[in-house]
Amino acid sequence: MTLTIAQADAMLAAGAARAHTLGVAANIAVLDAAAHLKAFARMDNAVLGSIDVSIGKARTSALFQISSEAVWDYCQPGAPAHNLEASNGGLMPFPGGLPVIATDGEIVGAVGVSGGAPAQDLEIAQAAVDALTA
Amino acid sequence: MTLTIAQADAMLAAGAARAHTLGVAANIAVLDAAAHLKAFARMDNAVLGSIDVSIGKARTSALFQISSEAVWDYCQPGAPAHNLEASNGGLMPFPGGLPVIATDGEIVGAVGVSGGAPAQDLEIAQAAVDALTA
Amino acid sequence: MTLTIAQADAMLAAGAARAHTLGVAANIAVLDAAAHLKAFARMDNAVLGSIDVSIGKARTSALFQISSEAVWDYCQPGAPAHNLEASNGGLMPFPGGLPVIATDGEIVGAVGVSGGAPAQDLEIAQAAVDALTA
Amino acid sequence: MTLTIAQADAMLAAGAARAHTLGVAANIAVLDAAAHLKAFARMDNAVLGSIDVSIGKARTSALFQISSEAVWDYCQPGAPAHNLEASNGGLMPFPGGLPVIATDGEIVGAVGVSGGAPAQDLEIAQAAVDALTA
Repeated sequence: MTLTIAQADAMLAAGAARAHTLGVAANIAVLDAAAHLKAFARMDNAVLGSIDVSIGKARTSALFQISSEAVWDYCQPGAPAHNLEASNGGLMPFPGGLPVIATDGEIVGAVGVSGGAPAQDLEIAQAAVDALTA
Repeated sequence: MTLTIAQADAMLAAGAARAHTLGVAANIAVLDAAAHLKAFARMDNAVLGSIDVSIGKARTSALFQISSEAVWDYCQPGAPAHNLEASNGGLMPFPGGLPVIATDGEIVGAVGVSGGAPAQDLEIAQAAVDALTA
Repeated sequence: MTLTIAQADAMLAAGAARAHTLGVAANIAVLDAAAHLKAFARMDNAVLGSIDVSIGKARTSALFQISSEAVWDYCQPGAPAHNLEASNGGLMPFPGGLPVIATDGEIVGAVGVSGGAPAQDLEIAQAAVDALTA
Repeated sequence: MTLTIAQADAMLAAGAARAHTLGVAANIAVLDAAAHLKAFARMDNAVLGSIDVSIGKARTSALFQISSEAVWDYCQPGAPAHNLEASNGGLMPFPGGLPVIATDGEIVGAVGVSGGAPAQDLEIAQAAVDALTA
């Protein structure tokens, strides 16, 4: 399955709606399964530094096909993949990036959110994913 | 004036509508006046290489406050600014990038389009600008 | 509010005066709110490596609208945003970068200082900010 | 001779004064003989794209110890140094960059100006150099 722009826009809209509810000004990035940018929105008043972070979280998820914070399980102190976070131009291994998995288990893309607290970013990303898969 | 996400989305929608009419699968990027990404859409079947080109055209327009192809007037053979296109990490001085100018003359952002022929990209970019300023 | 060159020069002068008092040879960078360079001074005998660091601290502050060391609160061990410092081409999350906030709360720019000990760099940056906002 | 910050500031002031006379909003960069940034000023309303161009012109002059446009004599069509402009991360071989030569012939730095027409940028750069050497 290929992620369409209609699906990506639905993800952005659902993420933005949740962000509004939370009172968060978020950057939301949707990437395809190959980690190329498909759609992006910077909500009004979102900080500039989070543009790159949102794309980075989505890229982290797309490249490893797991949530961005799950990548941290591999590179955190005591885990075997020391410095994995320096690969691929710099990963963003913390909450806010989620893969989009089709019902057949195939990854079709990823979403990354940055602008709020990590738990808020994750909730916004989940809302975006749910718009496509729920 | 600060470009809002509602305005940027209206620009993306108008650009995509024109692209559909032309039968072009375009990448469309909207940046703020300081050349930071505000909104982006990759239409289905748009080539991957044009993602960066669309952002680059918009960045070229935002940085110099003129159309992307007007920058070429400065760097083309016989013009005085040889190799200007190598500045700022690489400019995209060909048709498809337009500044967004408010009625008071202030630049508020820029749009960049890539995916079709240069004339088509320019027409799509103009449709996006017209959505905001017409 | 747009940061003027007169304001930026006043910030540089105030920062340099404080640096002289402290016996520090500092690099001082003033950026606008969108992280573009507005004014810069390398005091005599300041180390070359600190040119980029001073700009990087100011960029870190502008992009996240907080002091550069406050960004470390997000990415330090135990905090949730592991490797955030690798975003945006490399952040400088340690003392010496401060946002410039107008009386209405709007960010209008940032200053970054490098050349002395971190506490000295911060004191110099604060002197620069005070020149504009005190 | 080492270029001091007092000298660099005098160059910036003289350049800005000439730019005001010409009605040009210029970016002015002063580099030392090793092409490291010493001082910089972006006049109000100068275009963002010219920040990098002004530094690039000064860098071009410092690296080759001649005016930026004289570098073009080596790389222009018919000249032997094809593509020299792609060296050093991208040269800016057009008017507006000048070396600063001490009375003993030693190069002590360079100035680069961007924001106006090439002839204006050159005139502003010359005014900056004259402030130090006249």
